[in-house]
Amino acid sequence: MCQLLGMNCNTPTDICFSFTGFQARGGLTDHHRDGWGIAFFDGCGVRVFLDAQATVESPIASLVRSYPIRSKNVIAHIRKATRGAVGLENTHPFQRELWGRYWIFAHNGHLRDFSPPFDGSVLPVGATDSERAFCWILQSLRSRFPAGEPEAQVLYHALRELAASIGRHGEFNFLLSDGRRLYAHCASRLAYVVRKAPFGVAHLKDQDLSVDFKEVTTPHDRVAVLATTPLTDDEAWQQVPRGTLLAFKDGEAEHFDDMSTGAGCEPGCSLEAAA
Amino acid sequence: MCQLLGMNCNTPTDICFSFTGFQARGGLTDHHRDGWGIAFFDGCGVRVFLDAQATVESPIASLVRSYPIRSKNVIAHIRKATRGAVGLENTHPFQRELWGRYWIFAHNGHLRDFSPPFDGSVLPVGATDSERAFCWILQSLRSRFPAGEPEAQVLYHALRELAASIGRHGEFNFLLSDGRRLYAHCASRLAYVVRKAPFGVAHLKDQDLSVDFKEVTTPHDRVAVLATTPLTDDEAWQQVPRGTLLAFKDGEAEHFDDMSTGAGCEPGCSLEAAA
Repeated sequence: MCQLLGMNCNTPTDICFSFTGFQARGGLTDHHRDGWGIAFFDGCGVRVFLDAQATVESPIASLVRSYPIRSKNVIAHIRKATRGAVGLENTHPFQRELWGRYWIFAHNGHLRDFSPPFDGSVLPVGATDSERAFCWILQSLRSRFPAGEPEAQVLYHALRELAASIGRHGEFNFLLSDGRRLYAHCASRLAYVVRKAPFGVAHLKDQDLSVDFKEVTTPHDRVAVLATTPLTDDEAWQQVPRGTLLAFKDGEAEHFDDMSTGAGCEPGCSLEAAA
Repeated sequence: MCQLLGMNCNTPTDICFSFTGFQARGGLTDHHRDGWGIAFFDGCGVRVFLDAQATVESPIASLVRSYPIRSKNVIAHIRKATRGAVGLENTHPFQRELWGRYWIFAHNGHLRDFSPPFDGSVLPVGATDSERAFCWILQSLRSRFPAGEPEAQVLYHALRELAASIGRHGEFNFLLSDGRRLYAHCASRLAYVVRKAPFGVAHLKDQDLSVDFKEVTTPHDRVAVLATTPLTDDEAWQQVPRGTLLAFKDGEAEHFDDMSTGAGCEPGCSLEAAA
């Protein structure tokens, strides 16, 4: 099992604080040692840092922790290999282009018997079920909307259907972004917190580190942070309901008619899969 | 005008020495300050570092210079913006997937009136003529070989035809790699050196730094390094003939029947375009 971290904001924000706690799970406070990666959107550009070694030993992770890269959409992942060897091509997040925008995807979970019929338009490079799911999502969207990106509600519902259908193959927690919205599907474990004024102090669970957000924000800032399990021990994290696809824009969850995918796992399934 | 750097080897090799000289051209010994990027293949995976600031001020460039990432295929680029604003989405090298492999591309030069008919299968995200050329190459290859990658000679000749046709629009020096071969097209300026046993000492042109390759290689190693202009002042760099597409594999140039694209610029064209 792996760990996910995501951020969606209304103003470019650095993720140094949250990444410090998250990074500790890659070999220090948890056992996800088989690579890690993080993607930062910057306008319609994106930069992705990937490393096939544990975050706690990675000089690239030290750079990311100490160099404040500001972004409105970030997706990070720490890997505990279950399918596919340890290697850069199997390291999340994955990147492809669709409709003239970059898309970034990371997955936590385990899909069984998932071998969709690829038509060659978007192919996996590595051997993970996760990259197959991502490529299948993009191939399906391109084929359903050949003229280009549909409006937000239509796209959301298409993604919800895809999450539901892929989620029938197993545990499908994922984060997906095109640099404007951050889509978050919870099958078993995914929590989020929205930081906004009045800002206060937060303390990391995985490292003895606090930050006073009042000192580093303006009253207008709004930042949603998502993680497999809460990163701080003194903020009001909410569990994303199992079998739900959320869409975050400008630091808050959008509301659509029906947000259920029916692809929630039974409680305990993630513990079982991690065994 | 921009600067290109490429490396193709028979064994994974770090590029710290060459990158140190190359990096100096990004704001110190030359004026290419509008971003830089470098891609390292690792098996079929690839990691791309991008930064929209000058290399000499970039903490990411310092990391790349000091952290030995070993790779058999590397492409780097320093940008002096001529078309497209300074921004991450316009920073080379560009990355896409084709036939289940990642492809990386960087361009030096200037294309005029180049607006090919995209069918939506591979679209540019930024606004550069360079990314348009890359997407057009991949769209053309996918459409010509829908069943997948053809054999090396057939692929080489298809790339040669594409380089010739795009090169009619202007100055088209480029580096392209799928992680196995490194393709290098020279329209005006591109030089290379092949380092192999017996290895000796080399001294950078752009920094007062020497390396004794005997101390860091084995007798079997073979490394081809390509750059817009030679990086060292005491090695036998060869100019790639104008209007020629070379293909490097395992650290040496392969030979095909006809390697001319006819897309060489007149001597002096690059100076004119840089003015």
